[in-house]
Amino acid sequence: MAEKPLPIDPAIIRRIADEYPTPFHLYDERGIRSNAHRLNVAFRWCESFREYFAVKATPNPHILAILKEEGCGADCSSYAELVLSERVGLVGEHVMFTSNDTPAKEYAEAKRRGAIINLDDITHVEYLERHVGLPELVCFRYNPGPLREGNVIIGKPEDAKYGLTRAQLFEGYRALKKKGVKRFGLHTMVASNELNPQFFVETAKMLFELAVEIAAKVDVRLEFVNLGGGIGIPYRPGQKAIDYGEISDGVKAAYEAMIRPAGLHPLAICMENGRCMTGPYGVLVTRAIHKKDIYKKYVGVDACMANLMRPGMYGAYHHITVIGKEDAPATTTVDVVGSLCENNDKFAIDRKLPPIESGDLLAIHDAGAHGHSMGFQYNGKPRSAELLLREDGSVKLIRRAETLDDLFATLDFAEFK
Amino acid sequence: MAEKPLPIDPAIIRRIADEYPTPFHLYDERGIRSNAHRLNVAFRWCESFREYFAVKATPNPHILAILKEEGCGADCSSYAELVLSERVGLVGEHVMFTSNDTPAKEYAEAKRRGAIINLDDITHVEYLERHVGLPELVCFRYNPGPLREGNVIIGKPEDAKYGLTRAQLFEGYRALKKKGVKRFGLHTMVASNELNPQFFVETAKMLFELAVEIAAKVDVRLEFVNLGGGIGIPYRPGQKAIDYGEISDGVKAAYEAMIRPAGLHPLAICMENGRCMTGPYGVLVTRAIHKKDIYKKYVGVDACMANLMRPGMYGAYHHITVIGKEDAPATTTVDVVGSLCENNDKFAIDRKLPPIESGDLLAIHDAGAHGHSMGFQYNGKPRSAELLLREDGSVKLIRRAETLDDLFATLDFAEFK
Repeated sequence: MAEKPLPIDPAIIRRIADEYPTPFHLYDERGIRSNAHRLNVAFRWCESFREYFAVKATPNPHILAILKEEGCGADCSSYAELVLSERVGLVGEHVMFTSNDTPAKEYAEAKRRGAIINLDDITHVEYLERHVGLPELVCFRYNPGPLREGNVIIGKPEDAKYGLTRAQLFEGYRALKKKGVKRFGLHTMVASNELNPQFFVETAKMLFELAVEIAAKVDVRLEFVNLGGGIGIPYRPGQKAIDYGEISDGVKAAYEAMIRPAGLHPLAICMENGRCMTGPYGVLVTRAIHKKDIYKKYVGVDACMANLMRPGMYGAYHHITVIGKEDAPATTTVDVVGSLCENNDKFAIDRKLPPIESGDLLAIHDAGAHGHSMGFQYNGKPRSAELLLREDGSVKLIRRAETLDDLFATLDFAEFK
Repeated sequence: MAEKPLPIDPAIIRRIADEYPTPFHLYDERGIRSNAHRLNVAFRWCESFREYFAVKATPNPHILAILKEEGCGADCSSYAELVLSERVGLVGEHVMFTSNDTPAKEYAEAKRRGAIINLDDITHVEYLERHVGLPELVCFRYNPGPLREGNVIIGKPEDAKYGLTRAQLFEGYRALKKKGVKRFGLHTMVASNELNPQFFVETAKMLFELAVEIAAKVDVRLEFVNLGGGIGIPYRPGQKAIDYGEISDGVKAAYEAMIRPAGLHPLAICMENGRCMTGPYGVLVTRAIHKKDIYKKYVGVDACMANLMRPGMYGAYHHITVIGKEDAPATTTVDVVGSLCENNDKFAIDRKLPPIESGDLLAIHDAGAHGHSMGFQYNGKPRSAELLLREDGSVKLIRRAETLDDLFATLDFAEFK
């Protein structure tokens, strides 16, 4: 099987690791830009297409600013994400506020910034009205329940805490209309890390069908449908990246067949991807510091679950390239482990790799999304820095590493002096 | 089934929640002290018994200080935990440094503080010597591999990344002795959240047997054995808390039968429990803010995985008491969920509870260990405060809640102004 290529040349990674202490996350600006551009080009037929980047994937203002320049908005799920987006100038309808179990205060903050508010539950119509007042534009999150299969990662929709049922959706739009809301959106999110383009076409068809039915039954004309995020990335070698064109072609055909004949054109289409926007364009660079041989063979590195939680938390696969040994045969089988006192702190289990020596640099692939952002400080581990490889080849520190002062920031030691 | 009692009177919890915004962790000083006292009393027959509290469970200096007053030391696994312990005066042999995949810098920090260094691997003898120099006292962590069954939680020892094999252990002590090390310890950790006292007696027997064999074969006289931690707590109603006396009696009998006859008395015994020291004496207090009825019924609360990760990460059971409804019949079945955009952000699934209204206070039991310390900031969620109910009935803020400034502390927004 061909080695999975890194987004950044290994020689460049080595050069950067000579200058910055490991571990660190390293993002490739060029890759992020060209991918966002590809997505937007694929949907160019839909004038008002917008990708709202799921901030939670990589909540770094420098990354948000790049995606903003590429025409993306922000999908925010919390007050902190609203503020982060605002700091880089993403406000108003460039922001979709998709949260659940939302406190009134966060709705107020979203409304104050003019964000599109996406309600997760039928009871939130009254809750939003009572605490904050209804905005002119309101969106609902639809949970198809048993009417739709979820994908493997996200699970069955009927087990998900999110969204409204079909019946509640109609009831909800009726209520909103009666209360004077003028503009409407419809959202769903039924996939995560899905690599089959047809899945997203089916989602579009589901929402288009609803748009038609909602117009007919409730006389509510939707302004947009949000297909959600969930476009997957090829974590494993041999997996194929999704072709945005295939999704777009299928969605376009459905649009022509369903939306235009119903007289509902123009209907805007949005997505809120996180993983595919930054995931493949970030690597976690770490250094091997120990080798161990007991009942199994281990390579200990200087990163841990503080830097990347997915393998430990979900058993997720992340490819690993040993820098300088890209073409060396994978003749050893090892667990690549971090230093947490948790036996699930392993980046790889029984992984075939070239022989690794202490000091070798390892690049852990696809750590650009849900990587740094999911890290915890358990065991007193500070989280690492984030670096950006710019298009001009320079390197920019876009988040400093944490220090002990950061770890202890909420503690008061006064009485122990 | 009888309701599982809270460590703190529900009326007191309600009073505190009137004063402090939810969610918060609330610890009971009296409970922590009396439990630590019970453990120390149980092992009073062993003059030099010491419990090294596993700092990672609740890395709060105010909690460490209480345990220090009760005679406990600190089990540290990282530089941050060494510093935290030092701040409350825990240094020297009151600290056991049990880490793995350890960087040289952390060994240096441990040695500088005079901590007992527990080596996780045979290669670390040479590594420690080369980078830091060998201290007078060195301990090894033993991994029995297939020679011992682990328990359900910790898994099979042979799949664990920790420790030395039996053969390496003998080789290790020989090498240390040759290099002039004078004092020796032996450690293992083969259980987590274990409720069977006999398990710990078996662990003691395993270590005593090794102590005898090491003395005979390598002429190394161990100064202490560390049984590790792993004493479980009754998370579920109907489970019985472990009786420290039962563990102690069994360990004492083994000591009398194995250590004294071999002429190895006095041999100190240590443990490094975290969970049982603070777990039952902390509750996560949160407020219901939403009710939702779709394909299942949900209660949304103002806490989330930022505050307690165990249910979402491991599917762990944490009992929930609805304050003021302790005696109300559990007539509804609900998922109790937080607001993360992760469907595993659920504190309980299909839990039978009394009907809950928005505004009701929920106390999530047994959140005093591996609760706050495992929280992450994913989705931009600030972590909550920690409060201590003191023995005199007063309440002390022992960690403030995080703010947005904390969440953004490692970012530089200068260029976005």
